[in-house]
Amino acid sequence: MLAGWTPRAALGHTGRMWQLYQFPLCPFSRKVRLLLSEKGVEYELWRENPWEGRDEFFAMNPAGRVPVLHDPERGISLCDSRAICEYFEETVDRNQMINGTSVQRAEIRRLVALFDENFFGDVSGPLLHERMTKRLVYRQSPDSRVLREAMRLAHEHLYYIDYLIDHRPWLAGSTMSLADLAAAAQISVADYLGGIDWSSHEQARGWYSVFKSRPSFRPLLSERMEVIQPPSHYAEVDA
Amino acid sequence: MLAGWTPRAALGHTGRMWQLYQFPLCPFSRKVRLLLSEKGVEYELWRENPWEGRDEFFAMNPAGRVPVLHDPERGISLCDSRAICEYFEETVDRNQMINGTSVQRAEIRRLVALFDENFFGDVSGPLLHERMTKRLVYRQSPDSRVLREAMRLAHEHLYYIDYLIDHRPWLAGSTMSLADLAAAAQISVADYLGGIDWSSHEQARGWYSVFKSRPSFRPLLSERMEVIQPPSHYAEVDA
Ligand SMILES: N[C@@H](CCC(=O)N[C@@H](CS)C(=O)NCC(=O)O)C(=O)O
Ligand SMILES: N[C@@H](CCC(=O)N[C@@H](CS)C(=O)NCC(=O)O)C(=O)O
Repeated sequence: MLAGWTPRAALGHTGRMWQLYQFPLCPFSRKVRLLLSEKGVEYELWRENPWEGRDEFFAMNPAGRVPVLHDPERGISLCDSRAICEYFEETVDRNQMINGTSVQRAEIRRLVALFDENFFGDVSGPLLHERMTKRLVYRQSPDSRVLREAMRLAHEHLYYIDYLIDHRPWLAGSTMSLADLAAAAQISVADYLGGIDWSSHEQARGWYSVFKSRPSFRPLLSERMEVIQPPSHYAEVDA
Repeated sequence: MLAGWTPRAALGHTGRMWQLYQFPLCPFSRKVRLLLSEKGVEYELWRENPWEGRDEFFAMNPAGRVPVLHDPERGISLCDSRAICEYFEETVDRNQMINGTSVQRAEIRRLVALFDENFFGDVSGPLLHERMTKRLVYRQSPDSRVLREAMRLAHEHLYYIDYLIDHRPWLAGSTMSLADLAAAAQISVADYLGGIDWSSHEQARGWYSVFKSRPSFRPLLSERMEVIQPPSHYAEVDA
């Protein structure tokens, strides 16, 4: 990983294929999938359950987290969803997602962090823990107090999205950006897990329904995680 | 924040001064301070205790977190330490800290995320909570089990730094980068709070002592947080 190479020799330009290590309800993996799809970069999906702690997986990412984007031919592993997105923003010109002046780019990255950290910490993280990890890994039932608090905080985040969409066509400004992909990725996981009540969030719902019909989003919405079923509105474009 | 402007008109070039909202033991604020200092960008320190939840502070950053870099003249607030660092990397050429090929830049950003998220989550975050927040905010005493676990995990992170420094002069490669600043910022907070046992970490200690003597680092090491005192080796360059 220390040796120099030509950045423009990105995979997908050369016919080789990236391997994305991920699991279906990981919101950070979803953000990367949306970005790769919007940019037209091809990749293979490799299922990884990070809670199993496979040695081969830790060898690719010492942090033991998905997503990891691996190129077996060059022996390169890209880790951390924001680092991965910056990499493709730098190497693939199509559909720029961190665009504009430096202040506008800072605004995009602020919102990506807000959804990756605050929305995940408040909403999708607790929902994943209660409804997925406890069930699949610990064979426990969810704590309804934690679920209620996550759903309450989801409303606060949706109000903020309502507010942003009242002022701008897209979350970070006049064009679609990585902020929209990050938000849609987190919300889609929370929605799958029954944590989103769309009533009283007209602007957020309108913004999100545009996403649901995009070709980049359709494959995500059709996937199912074993044992856990989404609510009926989850994959419907006009819901 | 939606209006366009010329990115090169960065503050510090024009004589105006950024205001950095932060508190002395916030590792993300420390990372930003190291970067600004290495790049020669001047700024004023504004003390902010995010746990007080000031309305004016939430107006600048809806996430309610430090660091925030504010320009009162233009009414611009930059939030999230990684977004702030990318902004100055884009607008100030001096001392490039996210440098090299796209793969090398991805490696720098992977390590920044590792220290911002995993080191903070495992070590500096719990230490801050037990030794600072509990004392200043809740008037409680620290939980010694949590402290012991944070100190155990600190060793694992230091072993990883030992390993990196065995293979490279700096954490992400052949030159100093934002990865080094992120790691040093987190470690300095953990060290202040008595969480770092440097014995058996020769490589990490050697790498860190180079930092301690840098002009960008000296002001941080001389600051004290009220009530909490660091161990005697904390600010010594040859300790
Ligand atoms: N900062 C990372 C966060 C990734 C993350 O938290 N992934 C979760 C799954 S959604 C994971 O792998 N957790 C396992 C662990 O932390 O041990 C990114 O953006 O890629
Ligand atoms: N991703 C943020 C994290 C900042 C952060 O967690 N700051 C802490 C202080 S060290 C904070 O303000 N916490 C208050 C809160 O989360 O309410 C960054 O990199 O700037």
